[in-house]
Amino acid sequence: MAEHDVHALLLTTEPEVRYFTGFLTRFWESPTRPWFVIVPLAGDPIAVIPSIGAHLMGQTWVSDIRTWQSPNYNDDGVSLLADTLKEIVPAQGSVGLADQIESHLRMPLVDLRKLESALGNRKISSDHGITARLRLVKSEAEIDKITTAAGIADRSFDRVPEIVSAGVPLSQVFRDFQRLALEEGADWVPYLAGGAGQGGYGDVISPATDIPLQKGDVLMLDTGLVHDGYFCDFDRNYSIGPPSAGVRQAHHKLIEATQAGFEAARPGATMSDLFHAMNGIANPDAVGSDGGRLGHHLGMQLTEGPSIIPQDHTLLVPGMVLTLEPGVSLPESKIMVHEEDIVITEEGARYLSTPQGTDIRVIG
Amino acid sequence: MAEHDVHALLLTTEPEVRYFTGFLTRFWESPTRPWFVIVPLAGDPIAVIPSIGAHLMGQTWVSDIRTWQSPNYNDDGVSLLADTLKEIVPAQGSVGLADQIESHLRMPLVDLRKLESALGNRKISSDHGITARLRLVKSEAEIDKITTAAGIADRSFDRVPEIVSAGVPLSQVFRDFQRLALEEGADWVPYLAGGAGQGGYGDVISPATDIPLQKGDVLMLDTGLVHDGYFCDFDRNYSIGPPSAGVRQAHHKLIEATQAGFEAARPGATMSDLFHAMNGIANPDAVGSDGGRLGHHLGMQLTEGPSIIPQDHTLLVPGMVLTLEPGVSLPESKIMVHEEDIVITEEGARYLSTPQGTDIRVIG
Repeated sequence: MAEHDVHALLLTTEPEVRYFTGFLTRFWESPTRPWFVIVPLAGDPIAVIPSIGAHLMGQTWVSDIRTWQSPNYNDDGVSLLADTLKEIVPAQGSVGLADQIESHLRMPLVDLRKLESALGNRKISSDHGITARLRLVKSEAEIDKITTAAGIADRSFDRVPEIVSAGVPLSQVFRDFQRLALEEGADWVPYLAGGAGQGGYGDVISPATDIPLQKGDVLMLDTGLVHDGYFCDFDRNYSIGPPSAGVRQAHHKLIEATQAGFEAARPGATMSDLFHAMNGIANPDAVGSDGGRLGHHLGMQLTEGPSIIPQDHTLLVPGMVLTLEPGVSLPESKIMVHEEDIVITEEGARYLSTPQGTDIRVIG
Repeated sequence: MAEHDVHALLLTTEPEVRYFTGFLTRFWESPTRPWFVIVPLAGDPIAVIPSIGAHLMGQTWVSDIRTWQSPNYNDDGVSLLADTLKEIVPAQGSVGLADQIESHLRMPLVDLRKLESALGNRKISSDHGITARLRLVKSEAEIDKITTAAGIADRSFDRVPEIVSAGVPLSQVFRDFQRLALEEGADWVPYLAGGAGQGGYGDVISPATDIPLQKGDVLMLDTGLVHDGYFCDFDRNYSIGPPSAGVRQAHHKLIEATQAGFEAARPGATMSDLFHAMNGIANPDAVGSDGGRLGHHLGMQLTEGPSIIPQDHTLLVPGMVLTLEPGVSLPESKIMVHEEDIVITEEGARYLSTPQGTDIRVIG
């Protein structure tokens, strides 16, 4: 912060606020109220939040908690926030706000303009990616939580044969999978996507349809479930009945590509290196899939930057947690995607999810 | 739009995009990629989206779909968006962006600045709340979906005695309740909060702790579950063992307050009227609870504006769907909150959730 002449960070989003305070609630699902935390250049964080959150914030390590009754149509915390910032940011000083890729501002734009005006000769600048950089390398405690989440997903994926057979609608599979994840210990299941189709699926972000599974379908389930505020994010592919030669080969290729990514993943390698290691096997004739990337970091969010793309030259260091997510194209515009979660260690990398064998799982 | 000299709306958030296009995916859980939809003053919407979403967007009614491979660190869709806007917005014209209460911008601030610069003599202005106003009055199809969601929650709440008894940790109750909701037909359960404590709870937004329930606890579960993209949002209170006189009276008061709100809810009444009808019973000596409001609209989001606060003079009209959510204070800084979902009809209002009797539900 000092290097960048930032006198305070202003946080507005769930992961930023939680990272510095430990404030964990699903209440962010309600878009009504803005929440603010200020991290001064020196001293402890200050929470400037709606009064509805005072009791819960009071249970974190934050002791300076300032509240207003929100929603307030005339002044939804802006004056209180401006006054607080004026206390800790000197005249001509600057307040750093996340403004780079993967960020957004969780307050109405009209309130940002009011805040700028109320701050007078103090100005709002970029946070220069400080919070994102801090969050990029995980602590042992964070890695433990992600590992637990991955274990829950592993066990849930192992139980998929209990809930899947030809004739079951995909929407029922999605409901039942979330149930399995809860039974296996997930706190909640913020993300489940997937697809099913003969010899592959059309995309990896669709919600379920009511179409029944049939023999010859490839079913993919991709989950981001949460344990103690931390995500895992990986998928599994299943063949309903014996797989075609094309599907079998595609799965082999995906696992080989993932393993190549895993072997390339070590301190000093770059995200770009991981891309080329995987893409050279999964997709040697083209520059990646429609997804545009073959993996990403994760932790307090389902996906965190940076991304495994050719243009990303971020150096890997121990403690980074990321997904390896190669995809292959199949006939008739179908695709298949595989995903595992890994952590970078001093020696290389370690799988957090249980790495899959080259043979696709077969049900029925 | 014409009244406000807005030549195109620029949409960046999940509910805005879905409202106009039907694009339904849980992939918004990933913050990496921005998504844009342009609604021109005349003509059909145009989607400007990452290529990973092209297949799914292609299944909606939108036919003009322009994609880029995201993430792109140099230009994450900004040029494509600017070029598209320049096609449909005349020079000196303006692009309307949601900037009022309950809104946020789902793209990095640095990209907004780049977009403004690329647009040159076209300017980005407020959307004047146009999308929010459109979304405020629900269609019959939307009301049906919310009604179905509420029915699922009703049945789940009725099954709570299956999963609750003294000695069960609250975290297990939370997991099991989500499982019940899925069994009863929820597509997913984006929101579950609640609390438990002797004679009341401390707040209504906390996640679960591992503390076991005990005799004399009041357990509250508040869920926002989703059916076909639409939320319900209501809670239920349970006494573990016989309730104290204070708890029994508090629940009576909450139900009476809710019913008073229901009776006041008719076309021509205001949100403020609902506040006073409920608060006069629940909290006659003070101006509302810490939550600052006694209900809100809902639909594609868990909470939507406007809010039931004294300052809100929005007139109710048929098709509005809202929650009635009075709260009462109890000794030792405890509270209790009750919530039901209603729709405004020509004649008055109709409950979408099953209204509760005055006696608190007792388990064990």
